[in-house]
Formats: sequence, C-alpha cells, structure tokens
Amino acid sequence: MSKIYQHIKEEAYLANMQLPELNLVVFTFGNVSAADRDLKVFAIKPSGVPYKYLTPDKMVIVDFDGNTVEGALRPSSDTKTHAVLYKHWDHINGIVHTHSTYGTAWAQTQRDIPIYGTTHADHATSDIPCAPPMDDDMIKGNYEYETGFQIMNCLKDKGLSYQEVEMILVGNHAPFTWGKTAEKAVYNSAVLETIAQMAFLTEQINPKALKLKDSLIRKHYERKHGVDSYYGQ
Amino acid sequence: MSKIYQHIKEEAYLANMQLPELNLVVFTFGNVSAADRDLKVFAIKPSGVPYKYLTPDKMVIVDFDGNTVEGALRPSSDTKTHAVLYKHWDHINGIVHTHSTYGTAWAQTQRDIPIYGTTHADHATSDIPCAPPMDDDMIKGNYEYETGFQIMNCLKDKGLSYQEVEMILVGNHAPFTWGKTAEKAVYNSAVLETIAQMAFLTEQINPKALKLKDSLIRKHYERKHGVDSYYGQ
Amino acid sequence: MSKIYQHIKEEAYLANMQLPELNLVVFTFGNVSAADRDLKVFAIKPSGVPYKYLTPDKMVIVDFDGNTVEGALRPSSDTKTHAVLYKHWDHINGIVHTHSTYGTAWAQTQRDIPIYGTTHADHATSDIPCAPPMDDDMIKGNYEYETGFQIMNCLKDKGLSYQEVEMILVGNHAPFTWGKTAEKAVYNSAVLETIAQMAFLTEQINPKALKLKDSLIRKHYERKHGVDSYYGQ
Amino acid sequence: MSKIYQHIKEEAYLANMQLPELNLVVFTFGNVSAADRDLKVFAIKPSGVPYKYLTPDKMVIVDFDGNTVEGALRPSSDTKTHAVLYKHWDHINGIVHTHSTYGTAWAQTQRDIPIYGTTHADHATSDIPCAPPMDDDMIKGNYEYETGFQIMNCLKDKGLSYQEVEMILVGNHAPFTWGKTAEKAVYNSAVLETIAQMAFLTEQINPKALKLKDSLIRKHYERKHGVDSYYGQ
Repeated sequence: MSKIYQHIKEEAYLANMQLPELNLVVFTFGNVSAADRDLKVFAIKPSGVPYKYLTPDKMVIVDFDGNTVEGALRPSSDTKTHAVLYKHWDHINGIVHTHSTYGTAWAQTQRDIPIYGTTHADHATSDIPCAPPMDDDMIKGNYEYETGFQIMNCLKDKGLSYQEVEMILVGNHAPFTWGKTAEKAVYNSAVLETIAQMAFLTEQINPKALKLKDSLIRKHYERKHGVDSYYGQ
Repeated sequence: MSKIYQHIKEEAYLANMQLPELNLVVFTFGNVSAADRDLKVFAIKPSGVPYKYLTPDKMVIVDFDGNTVEGALRPSSDTKTHAVLYKHWDHINGIVHTHSTYGTAWAQTQRDIPIYGTTHADHATSDIPCAPPMDDDMIKGNYEYETGFQIMNCLKDKGLSYQEVEMILVGNHAPFTWGKTAEKAVYNSAVLETIAQMAFLTEQINPKALKLKDSLIRKHYERKHGVDSYYGQ
Repeated sequence: MSKIYQHIKEEAYLANMQLPELNLVVFTFGNVSAADRDLKVFAIKPSGVPYKYLTPDKMVIVDFDGNTVEGALRPSSDTKTHAVLYKHWDHINGIVHTHSTYGTAWAQTQRDIPIYGTTHADHATSDIPCAPPMDDDMIKGNYEYETGFQIMNCLKDKGLSYQEVEMILVGNHAPFTWGKTAEKAVYNSAVLETIAQMAFLTEQINPKALKLKDSLIRKHYERKHGVDSYYGQ
Repeated sequence: MSKIYQHIKEEAYLANMQLPELNLVVFTFGNVSAADRDLKVFAIKPSGVPYKYLTPDKMVIVDFDGNTVEGALRPSSDTKTHAVLYKHWDHINGIVHTHSTYGTAWAQTQRDIPIYGTTHADHATSDIPCAPPMDDDMIKGNYEYETGFQIMNCLKDKGLSYQEVEMILVGNHAPFTWGKTAEKAVYNSAVLETIAQMAFLTEQINPKALKLKDSLIRKHYERKHGVDSYYGQ
C-alpha cells in the first residue's frame, strides 16, 4: 500500500468517526470523504462497514471519475455522488452524507428549510435548498452519479453558489454537506441538523413565523464570513 | 446444565444487552430470542429480570410449541408469540419485542407507518404494517399465542412476505421485529424506531407530504438487497 | 446521630440518586422519601441540595405530621405533601416528586393522560389523573399540606384507589408517584414519563386516536398484577 | 500576565465549561462572562475557540465599555452586549448567551414564553419576554452594542426588573441570561431551556392551555425568593 494517500485516509477516517460522536448516524447510515486536489483523488468510507471497525487503512482511494485507485474494500455506495461534486466544484475538499434525523425529515417533506434565525444566517444567507426527486430514468440509470448532477442543478436553478451554501437536502432522501476540509463538511452536517430541528420547532410553536429579515441575514453572515469578519481568531 | 444450547444462550444474551445500549428499552420492557433450527429451540430472556442482572446462563430454552426445555427462570411473558413465529416462519432465527418510544406511539395510533423516504426503502418496500388489535375472545384466551397469529394474518392480508418486511406494529401494543439472526432482528428494531421518528417529524413539518415514488423504493431496496446489490462488502 | 433511621436514610439516598440517572430531574427539581411504618417516620431529601452533594446522612427524618425528628438540614419544601400521603395511605413506603419534562407538560395542560396502549395498561387501568389546581385560599394557606389533600380528593372524585394507580399529575404543577418502596416509586416516575411522552406522540400522529379497549386493559394489567399474574419471577 | 484577574478568569472558565455539559451549546455557539465590580472588568470566552481548547488563561479581560484590558485572544463577538448590560445593571456579575435548541426556537417565533406552570414560576413571575428584532439602522450600526439596549428597552417596555426576570429572548436570535454569579447565569440558561421545552409541549398537547393563575405564581416565586422563603438551606 502506497504512503502517498496516508494523509487523506487519516483525514477521512477522523471525520467519519465524528459522525457517531455527533449523533448524526446510526449503524452505517453515513459517509465522509476527504480529497487531495493535487493527486485528484479522494479517500472515502468503505460501504456498510460499522464505524467501530473503521481504521485509516480501510478507507478507499477513488479518482474524480469514481474509479477505485487503491483499497481492498468496496467504497461507499454513494461514491459516485462524491466524485461528481469533486470534479465540478474546485474549492471543496470534503463531502458528507448522513441520514440525520431532522435533516432527513425535512428532505422527506420536499421543502426547503426556511431561514428563521441567526443560527441559520451564521452559516448561510438563503433557505437550505431541497433538490426535487429525480426523474425515473435517472433513478433507474446511473443513480448515484445523477444524484451529484441533481444537487448541482438545484443550486443552479436557485441561483446559489456552492461556496455560500455548503449544505443541501435531496428530496425524499437525506442531506449532503461539503466544505474546504472533511472536518468542515462534518461541522456543516451538525449545523444543518441543528437548523433543521430549530426550524421544525419554530413552525410548531408559531405556524405564522416570519423569515429573518435581510439586514439580520447580512449582518450575521458578514460578521462570520465577510471581508470585515470579526468572529473567531 | 447441558452445553448444547450455549451458542444460542450467548447469542440471545448479547442481543438482549444491545436493547438498552441502543435506547430501545427502559427497565425490562423488551425481549430478544435466538433460535437453533436444527435443535428446534430458542433461547429467550427470562421474564422481568433487569438487563444488568442478565447472564447467558439465565436465558431460558424453549421449543417451538412454547414449552420450556431448560432453565431455572420463567421465560418472557411474550414467549408464545416468539414460538408461533419460529414454528411458522422457516427462515428466521431471531425475534425482538420492544416498547421503543416512537414505534410504540405509532402502534398506539393504529396507523401503518407510510414510506416517506429512502431510509425506509433501504429496509422495506412497503409501509410498516400495523396489525389491528385482536378480538376480545382472542385477548381473553391464549393472548400471547394469538398475538403471533395476529402478526402472521396481518402480513397475509396485506400480501406481504415476512422475508421482505421484517418489522410490524401490533395495534395499541408495540413493535415486533425479526431476522436471520438475533443481531439482525435487533438492528431492525433500531431501524424501525428511526423510521418511526422520521415519519412523525415528516408529517408534522408537512401534513401533505407524499410517499416515496416506486422507482426510488425499488432502487434503494434493490441496491441493498437485490440480486445485483452493491451495498456492503 | 441515632442508628435506627439508617436503613431509610440509605433507601431514600439511593432512590434520590436514581432521579438524575433516569433523566427525571435537572438541578434540584425533585425529591424522594422512604418511610418506616413501624417507626412512623420517613427520610427525605434536604431542600435545594444538588444531587452530587447528597449523602445518606444528609437525609432528614420527618414524622407523619411533617415535624422534623432528626437532621441538620431543612427538609424538602414539599415535605408536608409527603407527610399527608403517608399518614392517610397505609400501604405505601415511598413517594417521589419530579418536574420531569413530559409529565410536567401534561400537568400544565390540566388534562388526564389517556390510556392509549399496553405500556400504560401494564401499570394502570385508568387514565393518569390530573388533579385541578387548588382554590386560592388553599394556595395562600398551608400550600404543601393542602397539595396532599388535593391529590387524595382527586383520586376519590374519580373513584380510583391509590393502590391501583400509583401516579398523578397536579394541575399546572408536576407529577407525584408512590409505591411499596422508594425504589418502586422512582420506577413509577420513569414509567409515567414514558407514558406521557408516548401519549403526546400518539395524539400528534393521530388526533383521533382511540383509547385502549377494556379487554386489553384488563389482560395487560392482570398478567402483571392479577392473582394469576405470570410476569416476572 | 497579571494575577489580579485570575479569580474571574477561573469563574468564567468553569461557567463556560458547563454549557456543553448541560447540552446548551454545540461547537462554539455560546459564551459566558464573569464580572468583578470593584475592578470594573469582566472575563469572557475568546471568540470561536472550541470548549475543549479553553483554559482559564485564554479568557479575555474587558472593561464595561467593551475595551480589551488583557488577553492574547479576541473576545467573543457578543462582548459589547455583555459590556452594556454590566454597565447599566449594577447587581449582576454573570451573563450567558447560548443558542440552546428550544429557547432559540421560541426566539425565532418572536413570541414571549407563556407562564404555564410552577417550574416557570419558581424562577420568574412573568412570561419570558422576547425582544423584537432591531431596526435596520441599529443592525447595520453597532450591532452587538445595540443588542444590549434592545434587551434593556424590552424589559422597560414590559415594566420588568432585571432582578426579577433574569432571562430574555432576542427575537430571531437566541436567549441571554444573567445573575449574581456566572454560575447562576448558566443555571438560568438551563432553566430557560427547560421552561421553553415544557411550554412547547404544553401547547402541542393542549392548544387552549391556560396560563398559571396569579395565586400560584406568587406562592411558588415567594417560597423560593420572597422574604419568608423556605426553599433551600
């Protein structure tokens, strides 16, 4: 086994292990990948292997066309979705897919998650988009590959950049998130789950709740991510 | 004490101990059995014994007619339901009964759990059936024995095979699940609880949520369980 | 300090320590007492002392008129409610008061908890009663003492025996439970919380859910508590 | 580094560490400060630093005008809100801001939390106020500074004293709490979260639930906080 992939195997391993710790998965319902853009490959969780049996060496190395480059195990069944996104989005190095409870429930409703508060605006300036389910021929065809395009097309249709909104719901399915690192992508999955739970509760408590006004959205997003941001060190 | 049942006692013990770990039971509200088809017996949790006091040797060995074969303790009060299902279903070796929170709430509503997403379709192609409560004379008669028939009749009425849907709700009561091993049956109990919670949330967020379309049901079920499945190792 | 109360101090201490373990209290929002009927006293948690600082010796010994018999600390502010119940109900040796989340929410609605399933029927044959809030003069007078009578009167008005239903909600306040031992009373508090959560979910999932029919209520209650019970060892 | 601030650094550190322990924050979504009124400064969490990397020495010392007095790190982005409140409210020495789930959901609805039970009345005699979102020019201006005034003005408009109600929601944002010590302010954050969850459940179970009547509010508040209080030691 070559050593050149060791860093992304380690990164993918550590990021995968965060999923059960953050209560984002039960059993094997999730996967994280970590990419190296110079090598044009990513390391991803093997399919169906329980988290407690994972090790860095069990991560599978896959290229951006979805071909396995190295690894004794079969990669995650969602591997092609990861590959498509890495191929088309130059500035991400981590992708996460989970079936986290509240995020998945929203996906099952086929509704975008409305932006109700600053917790949401700290991380995105728009509703969290929900991509519609795919056409039957896409489902019957190269399903996981088409899922990647469904995600990209949804953002395009809504005029959103993958660098501003780093999370999406796939209708009737579940959330995908991404980021500059695998760790950041996992962070986004946990943020999405929190936002999804709060939005659910907000509508239960006040079915007429209004969305956050634009000045607050801009303020919270900019203080964390803008050119004059003053959050963090 | 004979050694020939040691393997199913161990299996039943380990599977029972998973129930509190997976937050599927409080106190003694659940039981798991593990069967040996050659010996035509199963090992089951003793009745009313807290999980922390369980040991493999406390498991009770029962035949498929519900007669105790070996064991110092009284078997679970639900033993006859297990016996009936083992007797009639040749291809299962594990059965679980819990009062898990969301699964039991659905059972109390007497509604099937609608198939709203791929988390559900990864495990079953139909709604999770809810058997109606039994007639009064069945309840007053051999209650736990009749519960087994109520489960089997419900599947028959809905045209479902116990090999395709490995979980059911008994109306106003609680869930039962089964599988090729006791461990798989416990897995199914946890999956059912997850599906039940997600379906509850889905309807709260969108009372007009639609069920998953057939192409997605088939795709997700087949990629995990079909002849050309590509999930897992 | 006399040794004659050591056994109930130990019992009350252990039972109090179960409350945080079972997630039934935050901070100091709960108390358990354990009585000795021969000595006509009970041991109860001191008021406002965090659970982590409790020891058996910090328990306060109080007689059935609510007078402190032994102890350096002030007893729970709810002590007189415990005293009234011990004085009037001969067959209980443990009482618990918590502000557990779901039980308290039901109390705040002033509704009885409907009997929707066998989890409930395994422990009580009726709805869990909710006593109405007291008249203003009772509240301004000997409040905690009157709370005991409010509980007893509620059961009397509904024709219920404290030996068949070992739990109650006090309207706009929170649950009280009791039993043959302090440990059993704590068990009943956890059962009440479980029943309360399931009933909440049941009504959310199906606002037209029907109560459990009488044959199932009798069957489940009798198999656990009747003369021919066959649950447990 | 001077030693004269060590006591408030320790106090702020310990209080900050309670937030994840009490499940009031995910990641870095919260901050606690501890003030010394003689020195006219407070110690506050550094911005964006995960709780597991905190130490007492990483706390930042800030004066009541919001100027950093000592510390290598940038203080919490909410520092000016803390400063304003310390400057105007003489009798508080601790402030907490979290995005706790239920409290934040209520804030997102722009509703006060109705006083539905004694758990609430044990800590406040009024509904928990929700300050309206600020005007756009306040948001675009000195946002965190104005947040402090928004909090003070909300209490003034409702005729409430900061010494009687030690918690508030900022509309579309999240909760702030305070108290005589940082530890008490953290306690108040946990109480607010509990009250918020119970009020949510109360309205779900009974949309026509009535608020607590005045005699019960006074009784519970006075027995814990009045001149003749008899709660605690």
